Amino acid sequence: MKKNINIAIVGLGQIGNHLFNELKTKKKDIELKTEKKINLIALSAKNKNKKRKFKINKKIFFKNPLDIIRNLNVDILFEVVGKSDGISKKIVETALKNKIHVITPNKALIAKHGDYLSKIAEKNKVNLEFEASVAGGIPILRTIKESLATNKINKVYGILNGTCNYILSEMEKNADTFSNVLKKAKLLGYAEPLNPKLDLNGYDAFAKVRILSSLSFHKKISNNKCLMEGIESIEYKDIDIASQLNYRIKLLGITELIGNRLFERVHPCLVKKDTYIGNVNGVMNAVIVNGKPIGESILQGEGAGPGPTSSALMSDLLSILRGNIKYPFGLPHKKRKKANVYNVNLYSNSLYMRLEVKDKPGVLSQITKLLAKRKISVERLIQMPDHKRKTASIVIITHKANEYNAQRCINSLKSNKNILKNPILIRLL
Amino acid sequence: MKKNINIAIVGLGQIGNHLFNELKTKKKDIELKTEKKINLIALSAKNKNKKRKFKINKKIFFKNPLDIIRNLNVDILFEVVGKSDGISKKIVETALKNKIHVITPNKALIAKHGDYLSKIAEKNKVNLEFEASVAGGIPILRTIKESLATNKINKVYGILNGTCNYILSEMEKNADTFSNVLKKAKLLGYAEPLNPKLDLNGYDAFAKVRILSSLSFHKKISNNKCLMEGIESIEYKDIDIASQLNYRIKLLGITELIGNRLFERVHPCLVKKDTYIGNVNGVMNAVIVNGKPIGESILQGEGAGPGPTSSALMSDLLSILRGNIKYPFGLPHKKRKKANVYNVNLYSNSLYMRLEVKDKPGVLSQITKLLAKRKISVERLIQMPDHKRKTASIVIITHKANEYNAQRCINSLKSNKNILKNPILIRLL
Repeated sequence: MKKNINIAIVGLGQIGNHLFNELKTKKKDIELKTEKKINLIALSAKNKNKKRKFKINKKIFFKNPLDIIRNLNVDILFEVVGKSDGISKKIVETALKNKIHVITPNKALIAKHGDYLSKIAEKNKVNLEFEASVAGGIPILRTIKESLATNKINKVYGILNGTCNYILSEMEKNADTFSNVLKKAKLLGYAEPLNPKLDLNGYDAFAKVRILSSLSFHKKISNNKCLMEGIESIEYKDIDIASQLNYRIKLLGITELIGNRLFERVHPCLVKKDTYIGNVNGVMNAVIVNGKPIGESILQGEGAGPGPTSSALMSDLLSILRGNIKYPFGLPHKKRKKANVYNVNLYSNSLYMRLEVKDKPGVLSQITKLLAKRKISVERLIQMPDHKRKTASIVIITHKANEYNAQRCINSLKSNKNILKNPILIRLL
Repeated sequence: MKKNINIAIVGLGQIGNHLFNELKTKKKDIELKTEKKINLIALSAKNKNKKRKFKINKKIFFKNPLDIIRNLNVDILFEVVGKSDGISKKIVETALKNKIHVITPNKALIAKHGDYLSKIAEKNKVNLEFEASVAGGIPILRTIKESLATNKINKVYGILNGTCNYILSEMEKNADTFSNVLKKAKLLGYAEPLNPKLDLNGYDAFAKVRILSSLSFHKKISNNKCLMEGIESIEYKDIDIASQLNYRIKLLGITELIGNRLFERVHPCLVKKDTYIGNVNGVMNAVIVNGKPIGESILQGEGAGPGPTSSALMSDLLSILRGNIKYPFGLPHKKRKKANVYNVNLYSNSLYMRLEVKDKPGVLSQITKLLAKRKISVERLIQMPDHKRKTASIVIITHKANEYNAQRCINSLKSNKNILKNPILIRLL
């Protein structure tokens, strides 16, 4: 690699801004560590005149990012626009085809088009780096790809969405409702003010799970329908009851191989209070990797925000500058097979159920009959009356129950006239 | 780098054995990931005829490891002998001078001669890799060197010795004595059967602290006298009292910059039970890194044993095979300055003291007077009588006290006739 390296940034939002500043202030440090001189030769953003922390040098600003590739000699391009398709895909694709290394924190793009883009990168012998796409400040992808390179990994799971973890932690801490805490999270910048849906419904964590599966198990990125539930329907009541039973509720992303079949899922989990994962609170992310011969490895850190994200983007940059050329997913594209999918109906697990029922004779008997019909056996049952409303809450922790039976049972419960609201079902870890 | 890579292993103890097996079984996997074909062309060990899990191919066995370098064309050499000097130093030095990449888990060697050896490696443009030397299965060195490459790190600390952590955890769990648990640890292979001293007195953790400091702060490896205490004098009584006060006792290695001065130390600490570090039990290691912009990063995993160590050695191998050439300590040798040393006497911290005293009038007053003389202010004091022996245990938690004063106070207490045993002093985290 030559000594002078030309760099372009496409996208100047919060992340792009912070990255710009890091590149400027760490220039000397980078030269010391890699013997490469970096020159920022091009910037592009939707709106040139938006108020920013720094002044844009008009000479290096491009309205159309594709013009950068057409007209300049760029070596490394940062894509920080963040769309799963559109200009994000176009610019990454074009850059790689022009033998330009690409660094991106764009999980939506990688989870959707990672296989296709990695194929182009390999063909053109350039790097496609995306450390920042999963758990920002935690170097989980590099750890799996490089530090644990010859381990046989069988399970990776953790807290992959800081917004959800913050909301659940605050609800518990302040005995507050989901909507109140969401408002607060928006004010503090922990939740998207306009559309927090992709964080809350599990989609964001799921994109990360897909990237993790692919890297950990050397498979193509899966595009199967999956078990994905968010935290929107978690009530404080459930957090409180869970707490009395010595549990906390966490949104977990989990991927594992069960008999060589891939099982990916994102859903709230009841985790024991005295476990490691039960004590990761606030906006923190944490990832646990099980592999051989390494055993269990835990990584924890800030999952989002411009600081940790920039740190990850810079580590990708230095990796390229040191000449660390590698397959984007660890293995050559053609060696990564399509994953066989695990049949979620076979999944067997303990469940937490909460039913709001009419407080009258025979209701409990109807419920236990429905459970028995679906072979769901009760480990613990607590009935709490609300005398004013003549209702009761029934909380059940089951022994291991099969997912298929659990879903059919929930459906039967839903249509029972004595059950007043949709039943709540949360899986135990 | 050429396609066929010749490899030698010097040292065939427990680690060398496991590594040999990994290289054999992962050969195809390595070729797939790096496009390099590895060939094990030489082995060396003190005793050729020792009983091993595999049969040594006599054709590739060398009695004198230096003959390997003299007579064969080796590209990468694993040094797994483990001495801080002698043949370990000689073989690494000679290999590097002959432009052979070296991989070693040898913390004693690196902590003592790392600067000198890295200079030779840089001059000869080969890698000197030692990921396995600190916290075996935790990829902490690679994380600091690569993933957090542009962060400004100000503190790194953690549980760096699995033997000590196991012993302290077991003493608490089983209300058992140090010597009983040490016996058990030896039987289970968690402590060296013949000479566990270097683990127990803090020396092993301290070698790791020196490597961590050097990498984190870009300084030469320090060789200053340091604050180093082991766990040999920890009694179950202290663990029990600490527990009642909601603390656990952990042996921590800590390195930080205080106003640009390096402060390295290894000693037992009282840590709150509800903290992260207070819940890392058994043989696990954990490292916490504080940096900017990353915030706080935590890594936890198995710290020792042939599995995790081999995993780290293999990650070093793959890094070299991918052509990831880098400075052993992240920066060129000549850019790493000598660290200014922090004056430990200035260090100010809360302390736990336990004094075994004669149970008679005036003793407490003598103690509090001595404390007052050294400006040590008491936060909590508990006196527990032993009526049978007419003695008492006095436990004191102090407000922040200066190290110089604390040591002088301990000395005065030692010479007091009413104090029956050497006072116990444990620092709070």
